[in-house]
Amino acid sequence: MAQTEPGLPERLSAKIIQLILDEGLGQGDRLPNEAVLVERLGAGRSSVREAMKLLQSRNIVRIKQGSGTYVASNPGVADDPLGFTFIEDKRRLASDLLEVRFMIEPEMARMAAKHATDAQVTRIVELCDESERLAEAGADYADADTAFHNAIAESCGNLVMPRLMAVLKSSVPLFIDVTGKKLVAETIRTHRGVADAIAAHDGTAAHDAMFLHLVYNRNVINHETAQA
Amino acid sequence: MAQTEPGLPERLSAKIIQLILDEGLGQGDRLPNEAVLVERLGAGRSSVREAMKLLQSRNIVRIKQGSGTYVASNPGVADDPLGFTFIEDKRRLASDLLEVRFMIEPEMARMAAKHATDAQVTRIVELCDESERLAEAGADYADADTAFHNAIAESCGNLVMPRLMAVLKSSVPLFIDVTGKKLVAETIRTHRGVADAIAAHDGTAAHDAMFLHLVYNRNVINHETAQA
Repeated sequence: MAQTEPGLPERLSAKIIQLILDEGLGQGDRLPNEAVLVERLGAGRSSVREAMKLLQSRNIVRIKQGSGTYVASNPGVADDPLGFTFIEDKRRLASDLLEVRFMIEPEMARMAAKHATDAQVTRIVELCDESERLAEAGADYADADTAFHNAIAESCGNLVMPRLMAVLKSSVPLFIDVTGKKLVAETIRTHRGVADAIAAHDGTAAHDAMFLHLVYNRNVINHETAQA
Repeated sequence: MAQTEPGLPERLSAKIIQLILDEGLGQGDRLPNEAVLVERLGAGRSSVREAMKLLQSRNIVRIKQGSGTYVASNPGVADDPLGFTFIEDKRRLASDLLEVRFMIEPEMARMAAKHATDAQVTRIVELCDESERLAEAGADYADADTAFHNAIAESCGNLVMPRLMAVLKSSVPLFIDVTGKKLVAETIRTHRGVADAIAAHDGTAAHDAMFLHLVYNRNVINHETAQA
């Protein structure tokens, strides 16, 4: 990527990443304190602090005031990593994102039906129940919806998928925004179909239920676009 | 995402993103100079500078010393946005990434065969020629290979796809690394098949050629893994 020569904070932050990897620090683990880092990296206190701010902006560490610095959850998965903020036509973005989800999510559901452990099945069913409860109460179910799709991604036996879904998840609030309340009943019904099929370890049924879920989304988007 | 309250630089960088959007600044456009930003954002010079560094670390702007600050290309697409640095098992990562590429790239090739303009077809064929020339000379063809796959993504009529491929492209050097030189002949042959099919606007042939390209990759990875 054509950028200027990396400055001291960039080089220090690369060293800190290496330190996290070398020490095998995982999500939520505490980094050595500032004095130790100053010593080990041979850098000044303010440079180490600036490097940590860079790492926090890239979601690699989380700085808790008065407590210390910790490895973030899903470290390195940036906020809006595909730069959707910079796509102005949100309706086209919603439609193109859905096209990508068609390629990925039915297969992902099939894989989850094959690989999900009992604990993962329980979690998926619980999140399906929670979305349903929230949606029926007329409450905002976007977070529960995202968590449901993420739980399936976590269960599918592919390391890349949860990270990819974290990228595509930005589409869920987008869809709810574009499509209004029309999808609620279909979302509940098709989520239930996906959850039941995964619980039964029936890959084909899980694939088809997820496909159907996306078809409903597409129908509503096309309908809204035609009216606009 | 559970983080500490955003600090001043984070809030300023959000304002600068809004300014880029409001003014309709595109890739390579110059931002107003520091004095103007200080005035418009009502913030100090050093805070504006720190906000710009954050934006550069997120690949939203590019700071050229002595020249000014510009909107980056593919703004907002972070380096290693899925945090692959933090997946230690690179062989499993290569295999799982390939599984994801199987879901996406054959369909992408089919779409490109449908949507590619004459200029895009010319570009795809040129990049295929270039990869071939480099590979036959025993040179590093990773960049040309990446550019070839990106050109197909740009031609497929979906706004999300080029951004998604920018994420997955990190897999190309990875594959070349994992698989050594074994793939060269098959890469050349199957690239040619994909390019020819897109040039002929034959969606099914493009899909199948890309599928075959990935099958060769998978065979080599499985073979290497079995030997390891």
